[in-house]
Amino acid sequence: MVRVGIVGISGFSGKVLLDLLLNHKDVRVTYVAANSTTGRVDTIWPEFKNRTELVCAKYASQEAIEACDLIFLALPHTESMNVVGTLLAAGKNVIDLSGDYRLKKLPLYKKWYHADHKDPKNLAKAVYGLCEIYRTKIAKTKFVSNPGCYPTAALLALAPLVSIYPKKIASIAIDAKSGVSGAGRKVAEGFMYCFVNENFKAYRVLNHQHTPEIEQYLSRMAGKAVTTTFVPHLLPIDSGILETIYVRLNSVLNESALHEMYKKFYKTETFVRVLDLGQQPELRHVVKTNFCDIGLTLSEDRKTLVITSAIDNLVKGAAGQAVQNMNIMYGFNETEGLL
Amino acid sequence: MVRVGIVGISGFSGKVLLDLLLNHKDVRVTYVAANSTTGRVDTIWPEFKNRTELVCAKYASQEAIEACDLIFLALPHTESMNVVGTLLAAGKNVIDLSGDYRLKKLPLYKKWYHADHKDPKNLAKAVYGLCEIYRTKIAKTKFVSNPGCYPTAALLALAPLVSIYPKKIASIAIDAKSGVSGAGRKVAEGFMYCFVNENFKAYRVLNHQHTPEIEQYLSRMAGKAVTTTFVPHLLPIDSGILETIYVRLNSVLNESALHEMYKKFYKTETFVRVLDLGQQPELRHVVKTNFCDIGLTLSEDRKTLVITSAIDNLVKGAAGQAVQNMNIMYGFNETEGLL
Amino acid sequence: MVRVGIVGISGFSGKVLLDLLLNHKDVRVTYVAANSTTGRVDTIWPEFKNRTELVCAKYASQEAIEACDLIFLALPHTESMNVVGTLLAAGKNVIDLSGDYRLKKLPLYKKWYHADHKDPKNLAKAVYGLCEIYRTKIAKTKFVSNPGCYPTAALLALAPLVSIYPKKIASIAIDAKSGVSGAGRKVAEGFMYCFVNENFKAYRVLNHQHTPEIEQYLSRMAGKAVTTTFVPHLLPIDSGILETIYVRLNSVLNESALHEMYKKFYKTETFVRVLDLGQQPELRHVVKTNFCDIGLTLSEDRKTLVITSAIDNLVKGAAGQAVQNMNIMYGFNETEGLL
Amino acid sequence: MVRVGIVGISGFSGKVLLDLLLNHKDVRVTYVAANSTTGRVDTIWPEFKNRTELVCAKYASQEAIEACDLIFLALPHTESMNVVGTLLAAGKNVIDLSGDYRLKKLPLYKKWYHADHKDPKNLAKAVYGLCEIYRTKIAKTKFVSNPGCYPTAALLALAPLVSIYPKKIASIAIDAKSGVSGAGRKVAEGFMYCFVNENFKAYRVLNHQHTPEIEQYLSRMAGKAVTTTFVPHLLPIDSGILETIYVRLNSVLNESALHEMYKKFYKTETFVRVLDLGQQPELRHVVKTNFCDIGLTLSEDRKTLVITSAIDNLVKGAAGQAVQNMNIMYGFNETEGLL
Repeated sequence: MVRVGIVGISGFSGKVLLDLLLNHKDVRVTYVAANSTTGRVDTIWPEFKNRTELVCAKYASQEAIEACDLIFLALPHTESMNVVGTLLAAGKNVIDLSGDYRLKKLPLYKKWYHADHKDPKNLAKAVYGLCEIYRTKIAKTKFVSNPGCYPTAALLALAPLVSIYPKKIASIAIDAKSGVSGAGRKVAEGFMYCFVNENFKAYRVLNHQHTPEIEQYLSRMAGKAVTTTFVPHLLPIDSGILETIYVRLNSVLNESALHEMYKKFYKTETFVRVLDLGQQPELRHVVKTNFCDIGLTLSEDRKTLVITSAIDNLVKGAAGQAVQNMNIMYGFNETEGLL
Repeated sequence: MVRVGIVGISGFSGKVLLDLLLNHKDVRVTYVAANSTTGRVDTIWPEFKNRTELVCAKYASQEAIEACDLIFLALPHTESMNVVGTLLAAGKNVIDLSGDYRLKKLPLYKKWYHADHKDPKNLAKAVYGLCEIYRTKIAKTKFVSNPGCYPTAALLALAPLVSIYPKKIASIAIDAKSGVSGAGRKVAEGFMYCFVNENFKAYRVLNHQHTPEIEQYLSRMAGKAVTTTFVPHLLPIDSGILETIYVRLNSVLNESALHEMYKKFYKTETFVRVLDLGQQPELRHVVKTNFCDIGLTLSEDRKTLVITSAIDNLVKGAAGQAVQNMNIMYGFNETEGLL
Repeated sequence: MVRVGIVGISGFSGKVLLDLLLNHKDVRVTYVAANSTTGRVDTIWPEFKNRTELVCAKYASQEAIEACDLIFLALPHTESMNVVGTLLAAGKNVIDLSGDYRLKKLPLYKKWYHADHKDPKNLAKAVYGLCEIYRTKIAKTKFVSNPGCYPTAALLALAPLVSIYPKKIASIAIDAKSGVSGAGRKVAEGFMYCFVNENFKAYRVLNHQHTPEIEQYLSRMAGKAVTTTFVPHLLPIDSGILETIYVRLNSVLNESALHEMYKKFYKTETFVRVLDLGQQPELRHVVKTNFCDIGLTLSEDRKTLVITSAIDNLVKGAAGQAVQNMNIMYGFNETEGLL
Repeated sequence: MVRVGIVGISGFSGKVLLDLLLNHKDVRVTYVAANSTTGRVDTIWPEFKNRTELVCAKYASQEAIEACDLIFLALPHTESMNVVGTLLAAGKNVIDLSGDYRLKKLPLYKKWYHADHKDPKNLAKAVYGLCEIYRTKIAKTKFVSNPGCYPTAALLALAPLVSIYPKKIASIAIDAKSGVSGAGRKVAEGFMYCFVNENFKAYRVLNHQHTPEIEQYLSRMAGKAVTTTFVPHLLPIDSGILETIYVRLNSVLNESALHEMYKKFYKTETFVRVLDLGQQPELRHVVKTNFCDIGLTLSEDRKTLVITSAIDNLVKGAAGQAVQNMNIMYGFNETEGLL
């Protein structure tokens, strides 16, 4: 029984992590903490009453080190990098859900997160936890940087195309729509009920910090620089991301062949479901699950490809993928706790 | 006092039309009808109790002709074309909200509406009622074909660019999101509460009948053939359309200059609001109004333009624009009943 | 043309007031102010762009006095009572939308609003603006205290019964449900989208400050002390209040006779719609309107009466009723700006 | 490994049953069927893709008997009673989720379900599956009639009071609010998105078929006839029931003592959570769980008790309670598959 800890239990990702880990047969949650909140978990999140008696402590690395074999960090950006080093130095395994260890170039981190990176050594070591793509590396590491929610949906949707036909891609535009939980538990007027309900809008147009994350890993897959046009929107729902991706092609594709290629690429993957041609993903089929559903449509002139990709931002886009990463790291059944 | 009639009162557009026309100081609603529903309007739509005593008749052209000077047709596609001819022949003014008179080429109509057009003569005469663009022609006609909801948002967003810089445009992708009322009052499982709420999906990907309408009028504005990639989505809200439009450019643009050009283009228009740079439209600012809000963002490399455009699909995208067309046709104050 | 001012434009009631008053043919809005927010109204509320060029000032009584004949106060509780005296002393007409002048007994005010009342003189003079019941007094006063949202729905629902059959009433339980805008523009975790959406709960059970307001006016109508059991709930919608009222009777009633009595009581009222027996109010029939819809159902044993009552909390429950009060005070058509 | 079948997989309760049973370690789903729908389950409910390869058959009793030890019937009312007899006669265990076997008096069944009961013999034998109250009987039976959703919330809320202080109760009014899934997968205009969203209403006022079910079991617990005033409402959410119950008392109660009594009554129950005084249940704490949360508030004069009770109508109010009943019948851990 692996002893696991969750740091950042007061946030949405921390809550979903706890929900998943309480039902995971190979682990025991031995430590939960946060930076400001303390007290019984079932006071912080009343839904846990009669499910756990855990008490949230103010985070202290020594306590985490003593109590856990593996620590999940569900902290805000720029806070994780203060914590990771000590835990790794103590020989612990770490899965970090923040954005702190995803961008490999220091200036890029500074540009998008508005802070100097304080832990470049471990930044270099961190394995990007996009399970279906980097499984081998994940299995061997002690430190996983869990992907962002938007990048998870985008990268799984584009991985087959970009890695197999890198030269065919002329341009990529990603129109992304996310439920409100993607913004975290922030209390701000823009996330008040009356300002979200019956509303819809784009935000941070061409200016979202997930853009360089998407481009970095697309480029790595393609073996050449790939840029994207990325526009996120706020959906009046709790959870779920749907991305509609417009790929302009340099030369024509064949829709059936492409579809077969995608199916083959994800043939052995439980959590990526390539839909039949003519079908489109719907958020309600993936919300509260670890699945990523992908739909493909080629234009009549065969020069524009529309890929639709749907996940739950808190599950496959955060806590679920983190558990999947743990399953890979420890050699557990990869779907344990997730189906 | 102009006597107006509404045919199709049992649908959402018919209802909004009545709501607007009851508060219009220059007209009197003298006739309401539908193809299957009959009875007091405040039984069909209880919200009208104590606002009107109108009774909905089964549609009969002779009654409409006797009762009205102007008839609004809010009928389903392929039904309007059975009705328009008689009304025009009797010298009546007609504003048709269906898709029947928007596509000027007969084969195109057949391809997208799956029916032969039965009234090619009036199809040729119909003036496309995109008020801000075709005001002069509208003022002179007796027969307006009111634009579709998606085309209204798309064409107003693209008109300045396409008409002024037609050669700069390399490609256009329109990611459109609409509230459920856009589907009309259809009773089908896909529009049931439990299948829409907390859900989001693309539908009719690259296969929506508004695509050729958008392309026809963009081409007309550009003076050359313009094609688009159009993907509509279903938002879990009542009303509102937001379109995020990705324009790839052949050569760079200057963001400030472009913004000035848009502001100048719509300078005298009350209902089109070009937002400041850095601002994005939100549906709640336009829902229940006749406004179209437009936001502009140019990419860092100045070769991709993102235009966001928001309207209420039932108002500026249907009934409101129809009333605006009436105001133009009759020389009323163009904002009467709409502000 | 009466010159009117709105103090508290940054709140929801202030916004709806402006929306209504801009379309009212007998008044001109000459002053808008708030306690903390300043700047163009169309910056505070972008929906007003191209509708008004008004600028919100920091509230100053002298400016209000010079600019206006009538001032609407849409301030939070305990702030209005600091402002009313000066305005009335200057001979201005005032309609106060806060709770400051509704409870006539000072200890009751202190108990429920947790503050000493600072303006007992005007408290005694204030006319309670429940239009349909106190029209005569409203027509003669210069100072109206606009009713609370929950009390409006409850009192209109119970007025006929309580005033005509006061002795029949054994007990009254009011189960009230309100949309989120009823809480105002407060930024607090409890009103964040993810804590309201797909949720429902009771709050301030037996402990809401509208309870004594309801009881005070029911008692006045009944000519004897009437108490109620009042439980409010938070609905996951923007606007609307539905109250389900359970009246236990001391002796049997006749359903048809009761229904006729209600219809007669409200016969000449445009804004109160007594529904047919067997029909129930729905929020969507009253939201964005000044109507109050009432449904009646008597139990088989004829000893329990269930009354359902629906309003828009921001319109009939706040800004709409305030405009109706103005119409009465000034002898305007009572429905002007409201239908 | 117990072999279980689900009849009625195309409905919401059937879907949730399958979701729960696929994760239950002591059973295997060996048969799924429906009356009209057939085909792969992951075509009927795409969310199940990669979770199950089950195929839905047209229901045939012989196949069910051969494939299963236990059959869950999630059929519409008046259909279950055609099926139960054969299954029981073949020695199978049955858990019926319909209303067919809940009302013990034949005329009452006929009055509320508008049909003659066709299986009075098994009606007499059926054990009412309100787990926390009738656990002993459930453990011994082969045929459970699973409680209705509204009755589950009402009976768990009232059981302690009614069974311990039956003489104190003067009257009970139950104001019930349910999410839309309570109506099943019915395609009707009243459940269309645009008619439910941003709406709220009472329906079947004093006329809902769950009223006699509630009264029958309250009376059984009280040892005397208990009647109620029951009014259901439709909430604009997917799932969840909150009931606010107004109990008028013949003599005063003590709030703390009552609260202690409730806590003691449910002390050993995992799924009933009696909240602290001053706390109120919220739907988001129980939705997607098998919990029932209960809040208690006594009026100042100690003669009116307000009980609030919250469940997920599809889980504790249907499929979850059915699984809990199975766990009891088979002696499995009672929380297996449900926490």
